[in-house]
Amino acid sequence: MLNTVIVGASGYAGAELAALVHHHPHLTLAGLYVSAGSQDAHKRFSALHPQWHGKLDHPLLPLDEEGMDRILTEADVVLLATAHEVSAELAPRFLANTLAKGLTVFDLSGAFRVNDQQFYASFYGFTHQNEQWLQQAVYGLAEWNSEAIKQAQLIAVPGCYPTASLCALKPLQQDGLIAKGWQPIINAVSGVSGAGRKAALNSSFCEVSLSPYGTFKHRHQPEISHHLGQEVLFQPHLGNYVRGILATIYVQLADGVTPAQVEQAFHKAYEGKPLVRLTGQMPSIRAVAGTPYCDIAWQQQGNMLVVVSAIDNLLKGAASQALQCINIKFGFEPATGL
Amino acid sequence: MLNTVIVGASGYAGAELAALVHHHPHLTLAGLYVSAGSQDAHKRFSALHPQWHGKLDHPLLPLDEEGMDRILTEADVVLLATAHEVSAELAPRFLANTLAKGLTVFDLSGAFRVNDQQFYASFYGFTHQNEQWLQQAVYGLAEWNSEAIKQAQLIAVPGCYPTASLCALKPLQQDGLIAKGWQPIINAVSGVSGAGRKAALNSSFCEVSLSPYGTFKHRHQPEISHHLGQEVLFQPHLGNYVRGILATIYVQLADGVTPAQVEQAFHKAYEGKPLVRLTGQMPSIRAVAGTPYCDIAWQQQGNMLVVVSAIDNLLKGAASQALQCINIKFGFEPATGL
Amino acid sequence: MLNTVIVGASGYAGAELAALVHHHPHLTLAGLYVSAGSQDAHKRFSALHPQWHGKLDHPLLPLDEEGMDRILTEADVVLLATAHEVSAELAPRFLANTLAKGLTVFDLSGAFRVNDQQFYASFYGFTHQNEQWLQQAVYGLAEWNSEAIKQAQLIAVPGCYPTASLCALKPLQQDGLIAKGWQPIINAVSGVSGAGRKAALNSSFCEVSLSPYGTFKHRHQPEISHHLGQEVLFQPHLGNYVRGILATIYVQLADGVTPAQVEQAFHKAYEGKPLVRLTGQMPSIRAVAGTPYCDIAWQQQGNMLVVVSAIDNLLKGAASQALQCINIKFGFEPATGL
Amino acid sequence: MLNTVIVGASGYAGAELAALVHHHPHLTLAGLYVSAGSQDAHKRFSALHPQWHGKLDHPLLPLDEEGMDRILTEADVVLLATAHEVSAELAPRFLANTLAKGLTVFDLSGAFRVNDQQFYASFYGFTHQNEQWLQQAVYGLAEWNSEAIKQAQLIAVPGCYPTASLCALKPLQQDGLIAKGWQPIINAVSGVSGAGRKAALNSSFCEVSLSPYGTFKHRHQPEISHHLGQEVLFQPHLGNYVRGILATIYVQLADGVTPAQVEQAFHKAYEGKPLVRLTGQMPSIRAVAGTPYCDIAWQQQGNMLVVVSAIDNLLKGAASQALQCINIKFGFEPATGL
Repeated sequence: MLNTVIVGASGYAGAELAALVHHHPHLTLAGLYVSAGSQDAHKRFSALHPQWHGKLDHPLLPLDEEGMDRILTEADVVLLATAHEVSAELAPRFLANTLAKGLTVFDLSGAFRVNDQQFYASFYGFTHQNEQWLQQAVYGLAEWNSEAIKQAQLIAVPGCYPTASLCALKPLQQDGLIAKGWQPIINAVSGVSGAGRKAALNSSFCEVSLSPYGTFKHRHQPEISHHLGQEVLFQPHLGNYVRGILATIYVQLADGVTPAQVEQAFHKAYEGKPLVRLTGQMPSIRAVAGTPYCDIAWQQQGNMLVVVSAIDNLLKGAASQALQCINIKFGFEPATGL
Repeated sequence: MLNTVIVGASGYAGAELAALVHHHPHLTLAGLYVSAGSQDAHKRFSALHPQWHGKLDHPLLPLDEEGMDRILTEADVVLLATAHEVSAELAPRFLANTLAKGLTVFDLSGAFRVNDQQFYASFYGFTHQNEQWLQQAVYGLAEWNSEAIKQAQLIAVPGCYPTASLCALKPLQQDGLIAKGWQPIINAVSGVSGAGRKAALNSSFCEVSLSPYGTFKHRHQPEISHHLGQEVLFQPHLGNYVRGILATIYVQLADGVTPAQVEQAFHKAYEGKPLVRLTGQMPSIRAVAGTPYCDIAWQQQGNMLVVVSAIDNLLKGAASQALQCINIKFGFEPATGL
Repeated sequence: MLNTVIVGASGYAGAELAALVHHHPHLTLAGLYVSAGSQDAHKRFSALHPQWHGKLDHPLLPLDEEGMDRILTEADVVLLATAHEVSAELAPRFLANTLAKGLTVFDLSGAFRVNDQQFYASFYGFTHQNEQWLQQAVYGLAEWNSEAIKQAQLIAVPGCYPTASLCALKPLQQDGLIAKGWQPIINAVSGVSGAGRKAALNSSFCEVSLSPYGTFKHRHQPEISHHLGQEVLFQPHLGNYVRGILATIYVQLADGVTPAQVEQAFHKAYEGKPLVRLTGQMPSIRAVAGTPYCDIAWQQQGNMLVVVSAIDNLLKGAASQALQCINIKFGFEPATGL
Repeated sequence: MLNTVIVGASGYAGAELAALVHHHPHLTLAGLYVSAGSQDAHKRFSALHPQWHGKLDHPLLPLDEEGMDRILTEADVVLLATAHEVSAELAPRFLANTLAKGLTVFDLSGAFRVNDQQFYASFYGFTHQNEQWLQQAVYGLAEWNSEAIKQAQLIAVPGCYPTASLCALKPLQQDGLIAKGWQPIINAVSGVSGAGRKAALNSSFCEVSLSPYGTFKHRHQPEISHHLGQEVLFQPHLGNYVRGILATIYVQLADGVTPAQVEQAFHKAYEGKPLVRLTGQMPSIRAVAGTPYCDIAWQQQGNMLVVVSAIDNLLKGAASQALQCINIKFGFEPATGL
């Protein structure tokens, strides 16, 4: 059993992590933490997330010095569901400490997803202080990066939009099926939980409405482009539902690409990968909400392809993909506990 | 044409007021105000309420000294959609000022709804400084208080829950049909807009869910009891929709009360009152959302009566009832502009 | 391992049963059936319930003669998620057949919930042909009837509204805390899945809205009264959410009943019962949707008590309570597989 | 005052028409009709659409021979909110009849939107019998076709998706700003009311979820292409809200097209057109639901343009655009009664 600690357990992704770790046969939930000054410190986890009343009544511990020491001496696995800047600073403290018995960090923030300091200055507005760990971090796109994940000590779990986008596009890109010069167009809609658990006017019940945002400047656009290996046009939208992402993606195929080639690309990529489903029928939010799956389907007409993927943003787009990375890293079956 | 000013036009009730005043044939929208320090000051109304883009692009003016002077010299009607304490302090400043050309104040807050200073100390947590105006204020329950409204200079527009509750219960109470000693039980569900336009975790999209709150201690319980003339048990709930209140009310009838007596009580009360509809079919939120109506229906079995009322909390529970009061006060037809 | 068969697996409760049986460590999903003439026959389960794609791709078998024979010779447990009349006719055929190796039937319909033929003529509009089995059927209110469930061959799983209502009221009734002559008033709101999986205008997306229905004449009123042992006033509502029931219940307590007595009644009833949670905080739909729990909390003022319960109508109000009954009947731990 | 009749008043678009005609200063609501065999015949309009109780209690008249005669002799304006095949057959009967005093038909179905018989065989699955009227019908895209509308006796009001798409794309196409060979990609999401008022499993509350449908084969794709004058790729989605369409459209601009040219194209097109709003801020469903507006905004990066439009599918996408056409045809101000 691996002692597993979650930092940032007050948020929605943190809560999903807690539930998944609790149910995982090889993990022990060894502590739920929030930042030292959080007003949620010392509250019970179930006071914030009432569906877990009676099952996950653990206290939310402040991540003060004592907390850090406890984690360093006891934890095998640290899951960070913290803000980008916080993760950027915390991960190296866990990884570099000589007290540590050698833990592995899985970071759900954006802090280590692109191995390029300039990326953070441009798109996240802060200077990354940890060039060394930035280089060593491995991108945890589970179905595509398992060899590297097995070797890594720091895994950067992908963002929700990038997971939905990359799972749909990588098979096409790897097989060279995308027309040269074509930028795939990703029209994606996210549920409100993607904005995090916080008081904010634009995620209040009366204000939420289907609407695009962040045109040409969302941080996930360069993350997708970097890991796909080509430029994309990414247009996110806020949708009026709690959880889930639907990405409708438009691709011009290279001349002469046949439906059989497209089909083969997807089947080859996801053969034996139980958490990506090639559904035939077009995906929907309902079919994936509350599940660890990425559903993918497509239609071709001439050289135009519409490929649609759907995930639960808090699960395959965050917590369950982190667990997939744990399963890969420690040699468990890929869908263990999911 | 009456020059009409709205203070607190950034909120949801204020926005409804602006739209109704704009469409009213005898009112001129003479100014939209927010508190002097508001971060919304100088923004356009339509920037906050985008459905009004191109129609209501007025600036939100800060209620500073200059603003006060402008209102005092120009306005015939002041609508206050402000917090209780703010209304308590503002209304007398408008009413008592010798500069004023004699304006009338319609206050949508709770500040003047019960003519009893002790009430405010007990239920609102502040000491009311305006005993004089508190005594002169008239409760603006439009269908029940028109004679007093005509004479008043300060009208306290009822709360949303009290409007739904009192419209349903007053006909029974006035005709002596309620069993002696019985406390009517009011089970009411409100849409999220009742909590106002603000960033708050408990009105965020991911947190809202049907749930009771304020058991035995909501401020509207004593407001209802006071204006009904007898004690009630009032249980509010938050519901997962934007606007509307549904009140399901349980009443034990006095011995021998017949269905005909109940029917007569309601018909007598609302004959010729176009904004209360005795619908026969049970009311629903859908039938009243976006309308100025209070829908009422009932079923009797033996001496138990279930009476159900539904309103739009922002309209009949706030803005459109304020307009009804203006119509009464100034002698317009009751449903003018509604 | 017990071979378990579900009849009526196309509906929402049937789908939940399939998932729970699939995950249960001591049950084998031995067949999913629909009625012989159903247009869903031979479709895959996951074609109707796409969240189970790749996990529950079983065919929906028609319950023709061959299907009956297969069930009779192979099944240990039959779960009926069928219409009342269908269950009334099917259950005896499974139970009385000499071919059968001795199976147990858990019926989720209303067909065997009250041991009184007259009840069905009055409230269900059909004449019950199976007096014998009607007498032998045991009401599967899991926390209250475990001894009888252990002995039974036919368990009538309670309705969703009765489960929420009885879990909240039985502790008070058993301890004699309800004022003599008082009819508890149950104001309950159900999610739309309670109406079943079917095309119907009144459960279409554009028509659903919070609204009361069935005043004084819903079938669950006599079911609740019968199993509580006293009359109640039950007012159901349709709410605009998919799953969950919230019951807000008003009780006048007998003279002199103290808060401590109320608290003791609930704690005594649910001590060691992990699937009823006394939450302290008022329940909400969000806290129970997707869970097997019944959440209960209350507030007292003088001799008036407001007690609130919440369940997932498809789980604790149907499928997971059926599994609880299986756990009881076959001696597994109460929350096994839940 | 023009006597105005609505056929198909039981549906959602028909209901909006009834309300708009009722409020229009130059129209008299002269009759609400449903098909002769409809089960809604003789019901009150407000029994189906309860928000209109007390205001629009007109009976729904069956369109039998007597009804036809009444319309032919009395009506100036006939609004058809009927199925495609029904409109195709009805419109000529109203228009060609010598009894008629010369009425104008505004058809909200697809029956006369494209002046090409082959179109109906290919995309609607029926053979159009009215070549003559098909040729004379004028497409009622109000902001773009006013001269032809003024002359027409039969106006085919555009579909909801085409209205949102064409309002966004025509300014670019007219000014030659779209790159040669580029098919604009229209990613559109519609509220559930677009599916009409009927019992159907896929529009039931529990089944609706954000999901694409009709890839490469929705009837509105050729309608858009025909009236835009170039091919488009159109991907509709069902969204989980009642009313509204959001279209996010991706356009590659011709080489060297500047932001100023794009801005000029839109401003030139919609100068003085009060019902198309160039909002600056990205549109949302919330900003247009319940309004007669089409909101448009855009962002350009290099030669890629994202242009977003939003409408209420029942208003600008159906009923209010029909009223705009009436205003144009009869010389009223463009936004009269809207």
